[in-house]
Amino acid sequence: MKSGANHKLRIIPLGGLESIGMNITALEYDDSIIVIDCGLSFPGDDMLGIDLVIPDVTYLKENIEKVKGFFITHGHEDHIGALPYILRDVNVPVYGTKLTIGIIESKLKEHPNLKAVKKKVVKYGQSINAGCFRVEFIRTNHSIADAAAFAVFTPVGTVIHTGDFKIDYTPVYGDAVDLQRFAELGKKGVLALLCESTNAIREGFTMSERTVGRTFDNLFAENVNHRIIVATFASNVDRVQQIINTAYKYGRKVVVEGRSMVNIINTAMELDYLDIPEGTLIDLDSLKNYPEEKTVLITTGSQGESMAALSRMAAGIHRKVTIKPGDAIILSSSPIPGNEKAVAKIINELSMKGAHVIYQDTHVSGHACQEEIKLMYSLIHPKYSIPIHGEFRHRQAQSNLVQSLGIPKDHIFMMNAGDVLEMNEDEAAVTGKVHAGSVLVDGLGVGDVGNIVLRDRQSLSQNGIIIVVLSLEKHTNQLLAGPDIVSRGFVYVRESEDLMEEARQVVCSAVDECLRRNITDWVRLKTVIRDNLSDYLWKKMKRNPMILPIIMEV
Amino acid sequence: MKSGANHKLRIIPLGGLESIGMNITALEYDDSIIVIDCGLSFPGDDMLGIDLVIPDVTYLKENIEKVKGFFITHGHEDHIGALPYILRDVNVPVYGTKLTIGIIESKLKEHPNLKAVKKKVVKYGQSINAGCFRVEFIRTNHSIADAAAFAVFTPVGTVIHTGDFKIDYTPVYGDAVDLQRFAELGKKGVLALLCESTNAIREGFTMSERTVGRTFDNLFAENVNHRIIVATFASNVDRVQQIINTAYKYGRKVVVEGRSMVNIINTAMELDYLDIPEGTLIDLDSLKNYPEEKTVLITTGSQGESMAALSRMAAGIHRKVTIKPGDAIILSSSPIPGNEKAVAKIINELSMKGAHVIYQDTHVSGHACQEEIKLMYSLIHPKYSIPIHGEFRHRQAQSNLVQSLGIPKDHIFMMNAGDVLEMNEDEAAVTGKVHAGSVLVDGLGVGDVGNIVLRDRQSLSQNGIIIVVLSLEKHTNQLLAGPDIVSRGFVYVRESEDLMEEARQVVCSAVDECLRRNITDWVRLKTVIRDNLSDYLWKKMKRNPMILPIIMEV
Repeated sequence: MKSGANHKLRIIPLGGLESIGMNITALEYDDSIIVIDCGLSFPGDDMLGIDLVIPDVTYLKENIEKVKGFFITHGHEDHIGALPYILRDVNVPVYGTKLTIGIIESKLKEHPNLKAVKKKVVKYGQSINAGCFRVEFIRTNHSIADAAAFAVFTPVGTVIHTGDFKIDYTPVYGDAVDLQRFAELGKKGVLALLCESTNAIREGFTMSERTVGRTFDNLFAENVNHRIIVATFASNVDRVQQIINTAYKYGRKVVVEGRSMVNIINTAMELDYLDIPEGTLIDLDSLKNYPEEKTVLITTGSQGESMAALSRMAAGIHRKVTIKPGDAIILSSSPIPGNEKAVAKIINELSMKGAHVIYQDTHVSGHACQEEIKLMYSLIHPKYSIPIHGEFRHRQAQSNLVQSLGIPKDHIFMMNAGDVLEMNEDEAAVTGKVHAGSVLVDGLGVGDVGNIVLRDRQSLSQNGIIIVVLSLEKHTNQLLAGPDIVSRGFVYVRESEDLMEEARQVVCSAVDECLRRNITDWVRLKTVIRDNLSDYLWKKMKRNPMILPIIMEV
Repeated sequence: MKSGANHKLRIIPLGGLESIGMNITALEYDDSIIVIDCGLSFPGDDMLGIDLVIPDVTYLKENIEKVKGFFITHGHEDHIGALPYILRDVNVPVYGTKLTIGIIESKLKEHPNLKAVKKKVVKYGQSINAGCFRVEFIRTNHSIADAAAFAVFTPVGTVIHTGDFKIDYTPVYGDAVDLQRFAELGKKGVLALLCESTNAIREGFTMSERTVGRTFDNLFAENVNHRIIVATFASNVDRVQQIINTAYKYGRKVVVEGRSMVNIINTAMELDYLDIPEGTLIDLDSLKNYPEEKTVLITTGSQGESMAALSRMAAGIHRKVTIKPGDAIILSSSPIPGNEKAVAKIINELSMKGAHVIYQDTHVSGHACQEEIKLMYSLIHPKYSIPIHGEFRHRQAQSNLVQSLGIPKDHIFMMNAGDVLEMNEDEAAVTGKVHAGSVLVDGLGVGDVGNIVLRDRQSLSQNGIIIVVLSLEKHTNQLLAGPDIVSRGFVYVRESEDLMEEARQVVCSAVDECLRRNITDWVRLKTVIRDNLSDYLWKKMKRNPMILPIIMEV
């Protein structure tokens, strides 16, 4: 679908609807497009060997002359992570609050060719004109400081995008979400609300970040005689601030460990988002100069990531930190779906080393639960609702909540990536679809691994591969060498010599038979080899390895 | 460690301690060994292509003349699943309650060579003499009927093994756990208690199975106008009974779908563990003869297993059931750790088809929470405690509970598979270790896939494989054909022709250089090919495929 000029507002989510991650939404009116967020997603279990996933922005590239800028709600990877890739082709200004832009800048530093990208820090309450749109930044709360919602003033009405949010009346840094501004806008009339759905299946109200501070206080009091290690999300600057506050109160020195943690904390300190009492922060090498019970380590790895600092400590391969009996280790996080087993593994490993691992009731979410979503809708009271940021079941749960508030079902749009929702003051409907999807990143390759490669990796991972090589004489098609059989990931050959020899015999007979019958078409020959060997292995072992015949002509 | 005769009782867990699954514990005294349970485990994420995991019972085989029998606590796979494999070598009688033996028999039917295995049904309260042991079966409650704990009377005292249990004062089938017997044994004096730990990190008390019946009642009342589909664990006969009761109450016909569900229900019906009103059960083909709102499907697939009935319905590939808007689908289960994403996927797919999926508060656990564990210890008051059946953190949580009850820490044994705990009336200590571990089953192969094969599968799954073939002339070592390059799971070759050609050039140069310098040792030549190509690909793409050079001599 080509971008058109029919004087309707078009809302086009280009990602972020099938699962957590890859948030990116385009708003278009006549000759103007703005893009909200530009996130990456982490590979699913079926994306073997893939490092990360970015949105397909073909639509933006095709309409590049219209695109006025990226407006970023906050500095989490699922909202900013694709920028280094997408900005190569869609080089437009990036707008965000101070910490958000700070994190983006530190990210883009590694990409020298993106130095020229224009970045602009925007304050809460401030507005940016972008083509026929005006975008106002509104304060929200989230598990990272400086999160914003956007009020987008369009020719057909106001559209509000919440970003990721929770309602925290007592946040650690800065003020509470600007409920009054949402109410004011709602009173004037809001055409559409795009609201996040992460916790829409959870009843009640997410607890304040500050409650975790009280938990730390109790845990530090209980463990005055032990070293304390706290693992949490690198980007949760407020959580880090609370750990530092508690450490200071109990006279402990603080060490920060793990690359992403160090990066974010440096950015946050430079921009004054962290208030660290003089002399509290020490570096890892100085740790040995202090009694253990007077130290705290703040570290990455709360999701069980195998290369993160905490995993290395748990496995006993961290260069500088050795877990000892009595260490109190606090996992201030909850496992992201899919990470449960990895987190459990680390807890077990740390416990076996004698550490006291505390992982229950040590975290609060950064996302709005049902009562907060209802509050937001009740303040804004939009004409149309577009649940975003969540699996289908989460967005559906928001749809149910919204209906319970009296918004009719046909005013709620459950969208798919690429759907084009067109609206004006009077009506709204999904009228078409633009190209959208995922692009897989593997090493330096962007988009060169697709379904065929993934299917092969899947097959290789389950059953391994058997390679059959043979040499035929040019013209005469006489067998000069082979067939030889080599396998990887199939069986341990030294203990299965008989089997492999039998398999070779099966191939030999098949090849002999073909050559005897003058079947020398290579495609045919390969098929015969594959079929015979495959049948044999299935009957013998109920296994199905990939079989790759290679014929050399000499 | 060879089995010895030092007049001490030896307790040897051969599995079931590192994670859920593979429960098997040997008790030995002089010339007698009994084995409690014989379970399998499902493969971890790192066991690519493995179908299931069974315990290594080398110790039992080496002491086969002592082994008096398997005593099975209940009919779940992690307690019986390895029997078909282990009985081949350790062919001794199997003892269990009626349903447990029924499930084992239906399992062994598929293995004609195991027909001769002696199986004996034991009633609660009954005892079996086995060498110098006497084993009494005691009634417990669990998420499968006919679960038993064992009191093992040994020459040095009584040992109690709880099996998997919960304390259900109002069970659906049969009576509540025999607390009085545990109290009576406790009063007389119990030497050691082996108690399960699955829910030891959960506070409180597990709700009665009967509460789920009330939930079904409410859900059936809310959905009188819709078809109802309930997915649950095949082996939870009581859960199935409650669904049938509710269906009958609401005048619905019941269809059972999914192979394992049909198998277990048939066994349960034959043995009178299910009470199904005449005419309630219909078969899948008759479903179309009834109004949808007068039917209930009970199905497998509540864990998101990709081949199970519910997954096929969700994906729209079930031959006979098509999900329709309005269908009420109840997942009466909670995801086993590791299955969270698979379950979420199914919920999303079903929701997208318009079904109303209910998956919160529709299940109760079959395992004891902290208050139940404390109750069991308070009744039995053993001298020694051996937490079993759980990850380290779960068993550790039990250890903490037990210490809070006043049992000293040095009377609690946190064991590893193969550890030998020796005890008599006066003392207990881990004194050695026997061979124990996991055996991987892949297709018909038992134990032929080990670490090398798994490492290869892991590598293949992440980066694919590049095969380099070339033909050398015998004696002269002249290059006759190749080098050719073939890849699988690396890049999509049609779109990466330049890269593959460059890679071929890299190999050509390396081979030329070697031959020019008269390096014809194949091992050396292969190493040079591998190193050069690997360097090139890492520099070019930051990827690390397996590289397999194959040289043919013609």
